[in-house]
Amino acid sequence: MTDRPLSPAEFVGALRAIGAERYHSLHPFHKLLHGGKLNRGQVQAWALNRFYYQHQIPVKDATLIARLPTPALRREWRKRLIDHDGDGNAPGGMERWLKLAEGVGLDRAHVESLDGLLPATRFAVDAYVALVRDRSILEAIGSSLTELFSPGIIAERVEGMLRGYPFVTLDTLAYFTPRLTQAPRDSDFALAYVKEHARTRADQEAVMAALRTKCDILWAMLDALYFAYVEPRMIPPGAFVPK
Amino acid sequence: MTDRPLSPAEFVGALRAIGAERYHSLHPFHKLLHGGKLNRGQVQAWALNRFYYQHQIPVKDATLIARLPTPALRREWRKRLIDHDGDGNAPGGMERWLKLAEGVGLDRAHVESLDGLLPATRFAVDAYVALVRDRSILEAIGSSLTELFSPGIIAERVEGMLRGYPFVTLDTLAYFTPRLTQAPRDSDFALAYVKEHARTRADQEAVMAALRTKCDILWAMLDALYFAYVEPRMIPPGAFVPK
Repeated sequence: MTDRPLSPAEFVGALRAIGAERYHSLHPFHKLLHGGKLNRGQVQAWALNRFYYQHQIPVKDATLIARLPTPALRREWRKRLIDHDGDGNAPGGMERWLKLAEGVGLDRAHVESLDGLLPATRFAVDAYVALVRDRSILEAIGSSLTELFSPGIIAERVEGMLRGYPFVTLDTLAYFTPRLTQAPRDSDFALAYVKEHARTRADQEAVMAALRTKCDILWAMLDALYFAYVEPRMIPPGAFVPK
Repeated sequence: MTDRPLSPAEFVGALRAIGAERYHSLHPFHKLLHGGKLNRGQVQAWALNRFYYQHQIPVKDATLIARLPTPALRREWRKRLIDHDGDGNAPGGMERWLKLAEGVGLDRAHVESLDGLLPATRFAVDAYVALVRDRSILEAIGSSLTELFSPGIIAERVEGMLRGYPFVTLDTLAYFTPRLTQAPRDSDFALAYVKEHARTRADQEAVMAALRTKCDILWAMLDALYFAYVEPRMIPPGAFVPK
C-alpha cells in the first residue's frame, strides 16, 4: 500500500464505494422487507430488534460527546441527541420508533423492556457503542458515515412497506420523515470532519475500516433476523416468537 | 419472584438447567459437525471463527485477573492464562487450536491474521470480554460456568469428528484432551465461588443471567456459522469463502 494520502475526491469516492458494496440496503432481508414479502410476525421481529439500535443511538452519541474536545464539536453532535431523545415536547426518534413498533402490532411495554431481542442484535449494537468509546475520535465519527447512504434506503423502505403491507400506514412510518433531512445534515458534517482530519493515508484507511465495521454491524443484525425468522427459521432460546 | 435465596442444591440445579436448555451442544450446527455432516470448507469455517474465541480467552481471563482483589484469587485464575498461553515450552490452548486449524487445511498465518472472520463472531466474543470487564466479579465468574457442560460436548465432538471426517486425526484434535481435566478443575472452583458469594436471591439471579448470556454468546457464534455456511449460505461481505 502506498503512503500517499488519497485526494479529497478519492477519499470520498472510497467511502462511497464501501456503501455501494456493504450497506445493508443490499441485504436479502431488506429486499424481502421492502418488497412486501414478509409476514406481520417477521416485520414485528424487525421492528423489535431494530428498536435496540434506536435505544442505543443516544448512548453512542453521548459516549462520543463525552470525548469531543471543544464546545463547538459537542454542540454539533448534541443535535443528534435532540433528534433521538426529543426536546420534551416534540417526540424524538426513539419515541417515533416505538410508534412504528406499535403500528405493526407490538406492545409498547414489551418493546421497551428489551425482552426477546436476538442476542446477536445486542452484540452487534453494543459493538457500535464500543467502537465509539474505544477507537479514535476520527474513527468514531467515520463510523457514522453510513448516514451518507440512508436517504436512499429510507425512500425505498417507505414506498415498499406502504405498498406491501396493509397493516402499515404512513403514520406508522413517521419515524423516517425527519431522518430524510437529519441524516444528510449529519453526514455532511461528519464527512467534512473526516476530510479535514484524516491527513495521512493511515488515517484515511482507519476511517474506511471504521465505516466497514459499521456496515458489518448493520449487516449482522439482518443476518440474525433472516436466520431466526426467514430461513432456516431457527429462533435462538429466549428470543421473540411471532404469534 | 420470591426473595428467598435458593438453597445451594437448588442454585446448582438452576445453573445446570440453563445448560440443559441453552448450551451450544444443542445447536443444529454442532449436530452437523459432530455427525460428520459438514464438508471440509464448513469445518474450516468453524475452526477459523472459533479461533477468535480462543484468541480472546486469555484477554478475558487477564481482564478478570486485573479485577480480582486477592493474590489467592488471582493465582487461581492465572491457571487459565497458563492453560491458554502456555508456559513457553508446552503449547497452550491457543497454539493447539492453531494446530487444529492447520489439521483441517487452513493456513496458520491466515488464521492468526483474523482475516475473514464473520463479523458476528467478533461481536459475540467481544461481548464476552465486555461482560467480564463491566459486570460484577460474581457475574464475570458465573459466566465461566459453561465449563460445567463442556466435558460432555468434547467427548461427543472428538468421537464424532474422528468417525465423520477422514481429514481429521486424533492429533488434530489434541486441543481437547487437556480441556477434559482443565474444565472440571476450573468449573469446580467457579461453582464453589458463586455458591459462596451469591448470598441473596438477586445475586443468584445475576449469576444465572450471566450464564444465560454466555450461552447466548456461544449460540450466536453457531447461528452465524450456520447462516453463512450451511443454510441459506449467505456469506457476509469480506468473510471467509471456502474453496
